[in-house]
Amino acid sequence: MSDFPPSVAWTGDAVRIIDQRHIPERLEVRDLDTLEDVVDAIATLAVRGANVIGTTGALGFAQAVRQGLDPEESARRLIAARPTAVNLRVAVNAALAAQGEGRDPLDVALGLLDADAEQCRRIGELGRDELRDARTILTHCNTGKLATTGWGTALGVLYAKREAGHELHVLATETRPLRQGARLTAWELERSGVDVRLIADSAAAWALAKGGVDAVVVGADRIAANGDTANKIGTRALAVAAHYEGVPFYVAATLNAIDLSTPTGDDIEIEEREARELLDGLHAELPAWNPAFDVTPAELITGIITEVGVLRPPYGPSLEGAVSS
Amino acid sequence: MSDFPPSVAWTGDAVRIIDQRHIPERLEVRDLDTLEDVVDAIATLAVRGANVIGTTGALGFAQAVRQGLDPEESARRLIAARPTAVNLRVAVNAALAAQGEGRDPLDVALGLLDADAEQCRRIGELGRDELRDARTILTHCNTGKLATTGWGTALGVLYAKREAGHELHVLATETRPLRQGARLTAWELERSGVDVRLIADSAAAWALAKGGVDAVVVGADRIAANGDTANKIGTRALAVAAHYEGVPFYVAATLNAIDLSTPTGDDIEIEEREARELLDGLHAELPAWNPAFDVTPAELITGIITEVGVLRPPYGPSLEGAVSS
Repeated sequence: MSDFPPSVAWTGDAVRIIDQRHIPERLEVRDLDTLEDVVDAIATLAVRGANVIGTTGALGFAQAVRQGLDPEESARRLIAARPTAVNLRVAVNAALAAQGEGRDPLDVALGLLDADAEQCRRIGELGRDELRDARTILTHCNTGKLATTGWGTALGVLYAKREAGHELHVLATETRPLRQGARLTAWELERSGVDVRLIADSAAAWALAKGGVDAVVVGADRIAANGDTANKIGTRALAVAAHYEGVPFYVAATLNAIDLSTPTGDDIEIEEREARELLDGLHAELPAWNPAFDVTPAELITGIITEVGVLRPPYGPSLEGAVSS
Repeated sequence: MSDFPPSVAWTGDAVRIIDQRHIPERLEVRDLDTLEDVVDAIATLAVRGANVIGTTGALGFAQAVRQGLDPEESARRLIAARPTAVNLRVAVNAALAAQGEGRDPLDVALGLLDADAEQCRRIGELGRDELRDARTILTHCNTGKLATTGWGTALGVLYAKREAGHELHVLATETRPLRQGARLTAWELERSGVDVRLIADSAAAWALAKGGVDAVVVGADRIAANGDTANKIGTRALAVAAHYEGVPFYVAATLNAIDLSTPTGDDIEIEEREARELLDGLHAELPAWNPAFDVTPAELITGIITEVGVLRPPYGPSLEGAVSS
């Protein structure tokens, strides 16, 4: 299986990342040697994906402390690199707290990295068993090796099937407007030896209708207590089409995406982004509506693949049971 | 109502077109003075849309004959400008036949232009009455003033509502991969004083779910005898989502899109186009599946708006009745 380095790693004295801004044009691995480098990599989206950003921040903090920089000031600068990234703040603050208690913040950072990779592996293996007979799988956005410090969530299921020698064909949606599917998912699956074809987002319903797609597997940004799932814009369209065509629809996510304090999807606020993301290359000003996420109703979800098991409807009890397990 | 010139017109001695390659960056009107100019405009997609291409070809033929060029050779060169365009061949051959019978081919060309505009107007008015209470309408691809020699089919309904003073808000899908919605539809609606917002194709299901969209109206490339409708890729996704969310879904098309010799959608062959259309700007080679059209099952279509009336299910009898009327 041809492959590529981890999205983020610790070399012994530097934070080594894949600079994701250059994919798919080229694979560029960079060693971030200073706090300045790490802050810059986070701020410029050289690294992306909630867990990757968090781990990069924690590693950057550990590096800064080793280099004798002030812990509080280093943490502040890292968190300010992407102020709305919750995982970044949580991870850096965890490393800072460890440092304050006299522990090595590098242990915290490496622990985050390992935990993410291990959770992804479990999701992949459980999903592989669940989808043992699925040969063609459709996925959306990027939820793989570039988005996590392991092999990913929805893409983890595909990598686990590939590792087990299952026959596997993947349809990856382009994922407009930012094209994570075209830029990242198709690239990383192909690099990893998985048979993948890119499709327009709007072609997914037709792919499901024409037959031959055995399952849809997507990630999740947030899962409400009743199973309603917020994920990248376009996810609901896939779920509705899968439902109409009788194709199983799975969400793959780590337990930390489950938010029992949010009763239903109606309680999830959806980020709306700038019109210009849709206008790339047009040299024109046009009004646009550009929601970054949507909510898929629980009734359209066949199962939720987590690191502790595949959860089934009714999701109220199964989600609560998984989180408290 | 701010507006723009017709997609194609006859000035008295030249074929005047909007060069659609420059929209939305700028509006460039060009007079095609020679057969060479007309052939070039058709071949380079300066004009597009089945009826516009046909009318442009017929006008170009009439112009060539007026300038003393050989009729057979002129017709041959025009048709060869886009050899797979059925409307171009039919229109040019009709003008050639008229010339052979001693009639003025310009009359044929202007007749085609007027007939298209008149059919569009009837569709618009019938659609306006059908959708009297719809304030927010979602549409796909480009089916308006740039695609026809009138105000269009699906967009004709919107222009008719605008003309009648109805409150109207439009959501226009981007329509990947060629972005006809972003490049053409949003531009022409805005120029015509219609309140329009662009959305990603994948955001349409979410727009329908969030409420506030009263109807979906799209065009048609071909309607089978049972009502199954082939149209731009992404149409089926919209129909399935509209069905799930309880939003009426209409097709607007001239009767010449109805093909009673095609029993069902299963009998319609779908053009698959080059992968590179999906890879624009990526600087990468990736495998892709790029169907240009899809088929929407008749059961998802609330009504088909034609120039002779709004057809209703069951479509077998209503389509046959309309075509033979």
